[in-house]
Amino acid sequence: MNLPLAMQAVHLNQGRVSVRTMPLPARPAGYALLRVLCAGICSTDLELQRGYYGFAGVPGHEFVGEVVESDTPAWHGKRVAGEINFACHSCSWCRSELERHCPNRTVLGIVNQPGAFAEFVLVPESNLHEVPGEISTEQAVFIEPLAAACEILDQVTIEPKTPVAVLGDGKLGLLIAQALHAHGLHVVQYGRHADKLEISKGQGIETNTSSDRPRKEFPYVVDATGSAEGLKEAVAMCRPRGTVILKSTVHGEVPIDTAPVIVDELTLVGSRCGRFAPAIALLASGRIRADSLIAGEFALSEAPAAFQKAAEKGTLKILLKP
Amino acid sequence: MNLPLAMQAVHLNQGRVSVRTMPLPARPAGYALLRVLCAGICSTDLELQRGYYGFAGVPGHEFVGEVVESDTPAWHGKRVAGEINFACHSCSWCRSELERHCPNRTVLGIVNQPGAFAEFVLVPESNLHEVPGEISTEQAVFIEPLAAACEILDQVTIEPKTPVAVLGDGKLGLLIAQALHAHGLHVVQYGRHADKLEISKGQGIETNTSSDRPRKEFPYVVDATGSAEGLKEAVAMCRPRGTVILKSTVHGEVPIDTAPVIVDELTLVGSRCGRFAPAIALLASGRIRADSLIAGEFALSEAPAAFQKAAEKGTLKILLKP
Repeated sequence: MNLPLAMQAVHLNQGRVSVRTMPLPARPAGYALLRVLCAGICSTDLELQRGYYGFAGVPGHEFVGEVVESDTPAWHGKRVAGEINFACHSCSWCRSELERHCPNRTVLGIVNQPGAFAEFVLVPESNLHEVPGEISTEQAVFIEPLAAACEILDQVTIEPKTPVAVLGDGKLGLLIAQALHAHGLHVVQYGRHADKLEISKGQGIETNTSSDRPRKEFPYVVDATGSAEGLKEAVAMCRPRGTVILKSTVHGEVPIDTAPVIVDELTLVGSRCGRFAPAIALLASGRIRADSLIAGEFALSEAPAAFQKAAEKGTLKILLKP
Repeated sequence: MNLPLAMQAVHLNQGRVSVRTMPLPARPAGYALLRVLCAGICSTDLELQRGYYGFAGVPGHEFVGEVVESDTPAWHGKRVAGEINFACHSCSWCRSELERHCPNRTVLGIVNQPGAFAEFVLVPESNLHEVPGEISTEQAVFIEPLAAACEILDQVTIEPKTPVAVLGDGKLGLLIAQALHAHGLHVVQYGRHADKLEISKGQGIETNTSSDRPRKEFPYVVDATGSAEGLKEAVAMCRPRGTVILKSTVHGEVPIDTAPVIVDELTLVGSRCGRFAPAIALLASGRIRADSLIAGEFALSEAPAAFQKAAEKGTLKILLKP
């Protein structure tokens, strides 16, 4: 493949989304250059747009690409997903296989690393995962958020058939409900949107739109509401000695009544990115209906319209295709 | 022993502390009647005085007594401490040996159960623990709060020599620091009062009064500040994948920035009462200097003055003796 000298890429700065021509990035040793096949707009991207983390640059961290240049010839031409935390591989975190917490890390499209809303993107070879043929390119965009959903099961050991309440019916809530259901847990998903909960229902997941919710009942509650009230509600629904998993990134301070946390001795677990391997295996198994979460597809050149659509209340996953 | 028909008892109502003459309580089957030898005023008692939980009645839950009547003759004359959660012994919590979380429980001197700031008190026989001769009556008053300190070690498995930051140098903070230190952990206690931290220092515990504290450093941080800011500070000092233990009961809502909890995947564990057996063993071992926490001793009849003294900023443990 003859590589071009320049590429199109999305640029975010102070709320403005533009598509720019940029030089093709120079590939450092250890990195692979990927041609982006498809990418997804995540809530984090919308937060970057709103100016959180003082971000300015190329966003995008959910993507599938094809390797066009790499040190290891075997990667050439492979369809891949890439883990988004680029670690130093020399600190104590990295040596403990917790590269995702490496204090020296950059994060693709989020922290000091140009992202995947572009025709080409750089990713360290050690972060690459081949996408198996059973997974379509569109579905494979969900590997990264599904890995974040599966992270819960890496952090907390939950016995099969255990009741788990999932709060929220947005993109992440829907993936979490499906992932936990696929792992044999008894998921009850609570949300306000009957149409979105239909996606979970179609997978055999119990859903509930009532605002009159059981108190102190569930041994595990996942807050994926994305709202400041979600944590309070999750705590109220959790039974004594139970565990609340925090998946909602909310900006600013969230009010929490610590009295029930202490009196009922609850455990609260913050949960972020996860390993890609379990997510890839789960998608390949056909037990996750990621395609049902796709709400629209835009060309990379239409990124401003794509961001606008993604920001509309209730929109599920918007894909970008270079 | 010929029992009197009436007794003196402390009564709390809407902030007013009074000493009243009350009928001796009638002993139900399964309960022991104890003559109170000594009791301690806890921060919770001061909160009850301030009207939290809408409490009105006889407070007191840290105490040592002598059994004067019981179904089991072997208890007669024994010096005892009593676990404060009176459980139903028939629900699923009780069957799982988590009587402290029994939803039908009453709580001595706190919830629907007259407390120990009285000449006599009723306690179920199954809640009694004999106080070994090595433990003085004054020290034995600390069994209940020390059990709350030891509860941390029942909830969280911490390897010996692991660094643990304890925030707060109040009564509970001092007991927690001593308990964790006695268990071989590397405790660093942070507080504002050099005089109180001297107690910990005397036990060989590392202390620190600086407000310039390490960020993201400790794998375990215990918040025993009793302040709304404590949780935020504990989260800031905890390293990625670390655990924050919540021991501060603060009323109303506490602001928390959930972003670092999620990004660093912290675990927050609420912690309340504990089993008495480990606390008794620890006191009997002589490795806890509970007596150094005693700030004063009052007769039961002087309870109003005792409460006033206990409420003064910086006062450690005030004892009441009938």
